[in-house]
Amino acid sequence: MRVGIAGLGTVGGGVAKLLASQAELLTARCGREIRVTAVSARDRERDRGVDLSNLRWHADARDLASDPEVDVVIELIGGSDGVARDLIERAIAAGKPVVTANKALLALHGTALARMAEAAGTPLGYEAAVAGGIPVIKALREGLAANGIRRVYGILNGTCNYILTTMRETGREFADVLSDAQKMGYAEADPSFDVDGIDAAHKLAILTSVAFGRELDFKGIHVEGIRHVSSLDLQFAEQLGYRIKLLGIAGVTDHGIEQRVHPCMVPLAAPIAHVEGVFNAVFADGDAVGNVLLTGRGAGEGPTASAVVADLMDIARGHRAPVLGVPADRLAPAGTAPMGRHRGAYYIRLMVRDQPGVIADVAAAFRDNKVSMESVLQQARDPAEAVPVVITTHETEEAGMMQAIARIAALDAVQEPPRLIRIEAL
Amino acid sequence: MRVGIAGLGTVGGGVAKLLASQAELLTARCGREIRVTAVSARDRERDRGVDLSNLRWHADARDLASDPEVDVVIELIGGSDGVARDLIERAIAAGKPVVTANKALLALHGTALARMAEAAGTPLGYEAAVAGGIPVIKALREGLAANGIRRVYGILNGTCNYILTTMRETGREFADVLSDAQKMGYAEADPSFDVDGIDAAHKLAILTSVAFGRELDFKGIHVEGIRHVSSLDLQFAEQLGYRIKLLGIAGVTDHGIEQRVHPCMVPLAAPIAHVEGVFNAVFADGDAVGNVLLTGRGAGEGPTASAVVADLMDIARGHRAPVLGVPADRLAPAGTAPMGRHRGAYYIRLMVRDQPGVIADVAAAFRDNKVSMESVLQQARDPAEAVPVVITTHETEEAGMMQAIARIAALDAVQEPPRLIRIEAL
Repeated sequence: MRVGIAGLGTVGGGVAKLLASQAELLTARCGREIRVTAVSARDRERDRGVDLSNLRWHADARDLASDPEVDVVIELIGGSDGVARDLIERAIAAGKPVVTANKALLALHGTALARMAEAAGTPLGYEAAVAGGIPVIKALREGLAANGIRRVYGILNGTCNYILTTMRETGREFADVLSDAQKMGYAEADPSFDVDGIDAAHKLAILTSVAFGRELDFKGIHVEGIRHVSSLDLQFAEQLGYRIKLLGIAGVTDHGIEQRVHPCMVPLAAPIAHVEGVFNAVFADGDAVGNVLLTGRGAGEGPTASAVVADLMDIARGHRAPVLGVPADRLAPAGTAPMGRHRGAYYIRLMVRDQPGVIADVAAAFRDNKVSMESVLQQARDPAEAVPVVITTHETEEAGMMQAIARIAALDAVQEPPRLIRIEAL
Repeated sequence: MRVGIAGLGTVGGGVAKLLASQAELLTARCGREIRVTAVSARDRERDRGVDLSNLRWHADARDLASDPEVDVVIELIGGSDGVARDLIERAIAAGKPVVTANKALLALHGTALARMAEAAGTPLGYEAAVAGGIPVIKALREGLAANGIRRVYGILNGTCNYILTTMRETGREFADVLSDAQKMGYAEADPSFDVDGIDAAHKLAILTSVAFGRELDFKGIHVEGIRHVSSLDLQFAEQLGYRIKLLGIAGVTDHGIEQRVHPCMVPLAAPIAHVEGVFNAVFADGDAVGNVLLTGRGAGEGPTASAVVADLMDIARGHRAPVLGVPADRLAPAGTAPMGRHRGAYYIRLMVRDQPGVIADVAAAFRDNKVSMESVLQQARDPAEAVPVVITTHETEEAGMMQAIARIAALDAVQEPPRLIRIEAL
């Protein structure tokens, strides 16, 4: 099986290396040799730790789709449109199987691409797009395929999990830890895709589709990142028996499929609370199997290459499953639930001027919006400076909570925008 | 696709129910209807929560292999020989795909059955045989198939994990908790298969074969159960920063593939330390992907049926992977390492008469066998009764440790057989 690789960055180079170093094992396991015959990358001279000099080099990655010596196209260029999309569409049109790690592209165009691929009768593999080396797409689409999935959630961005873990362990603030993470290569120079939750939302859109048999709906996802999580919140979380994690969560509700990415207070008793550092995790609740949790590295050369090559092996073995778990023309409409109808418990941290009556005003705002408070914590007293007041609530509806928060934010004694973190009963 | 089920106990009934209740979903996901047409079970009258009255009933399960209205045979009778084995061999000979949850059969005859199935060109699915609903065979054979696996280990028996968890949480002793577990249906009337580690060893034999591409070698596995773990050991474990888990462990060593099942001291920082109660977990360390951990329910109607039906769906979709990950005729000999060459750290608990010189005698026995002690704990003093002395060692070789222990056991002051639990650096 002759493979063309578009994009020879960390992952592309890793795939080429893995195919070379494991050649014998892979041939034994799938009964065919898998061999790279062509590549496309900007820099032909860079040392990628594997000899690529005898391959067919294409200046334009799109030409891999029409190269007669390429049977399968691996797209590792990235980006939700442009060359990556063109290449994949051309390869599918040419009847060539495609493997990609491109979550942005799938999140935005996954339904259409699945339709195209199935119409052409050609596989489209994307295990590497979600949770790196963890075989989570395979688990949902095959291993747990006998289940109706009720809920799926996960730690889908290693950068955010690394930052939150380090903040908790060191007591340092977000900006400081982010800057270190950038120096160590755990975060991009422009960290927005990661820390603002967009990357996690791309992955969640894909997971939701596969878990619930729905069309993808990236735009319907409620997305918040971790920029506003402070070390103060991490301390309070610890005190209340929680860890703070950026989760992507999708589940069946009375109002449709809820899809949300935001920082969560996760009980210490939940196994996912102990998934730390750059590790990712995906949890699924199936109606037959119950709770399943998969944990592993979500990014990096080895884990991502592992997933890309696993997809190649499925193709070499002739395995064919519907791209999104059910045939694309049988996917239900996304039916994403409005975030205002979300029900859950909340943690709210206010910075208030310590004066009589503040708590009463806050409590009134909650009462008037039918939010029932569970606990109020005001540990520090300082007439000169704003002090934190932490409130946790019982389960309530998001819309009412937002109205209460708006009224509380406008109170004279409240000195900073209220910080809200949802508490998850996992 | 017409399915015949042999054995309508909890799991068999669960499979029939799942196929009925999820019929629409399954047809959408694999493009074919999967329908039970024939069954075999002793009691025709029992209510199994699903209408089986119109099916073909066979008094002899083996006749499912030759029933012209059966395309695929599901073997849920159990037992490593007898009817179960006959049925599977006949089905394979008839070119019918087989799905089984029978770990004992596979552990003892897996290599031969894989050869037969591959020679006949017919799939043999056994996802349900290891770790119940967790898709771990699929993960090793497909999702992580691009990796050379360096180590695989897991909590493979939910009964043992439940007993150890309950002992730790309640401070009660083994016999007491076992008796409760039997009343609640978490343990069999004859608990030996579970608590003596045999069931876990069956599953480990299968995992080892798939992970390392080796012939199965159940008899080569070093097996110890949990009968000798006392609540005292659980208390000391806590104090030393460990949890006690019955693990099945297989890994590449200088002396071959080590395969062992025994109680382990697992550091609290290891994610598997937090897998509690009836949950199972399987950990794999792949040379590309790094550490992956899969957790879920390892037994019971729903989880096991989920795995059986997933195998059926793979068959319906036409997926074909070598039974044991590589073609059976390319499996390497087992090459199991002798347990005497195992290297690791140890926890030893002695019950000694508190008299001068005991510790010196114990220390001399270790020194003479080149075992380096890490810590010695003697917290209680009581001239009238035996008191516990707990020793932990640095990494050492099993053979020397066993010689030291034999000498220590013979000491006058040592009142009970020494208890030894291996400490794992996970």
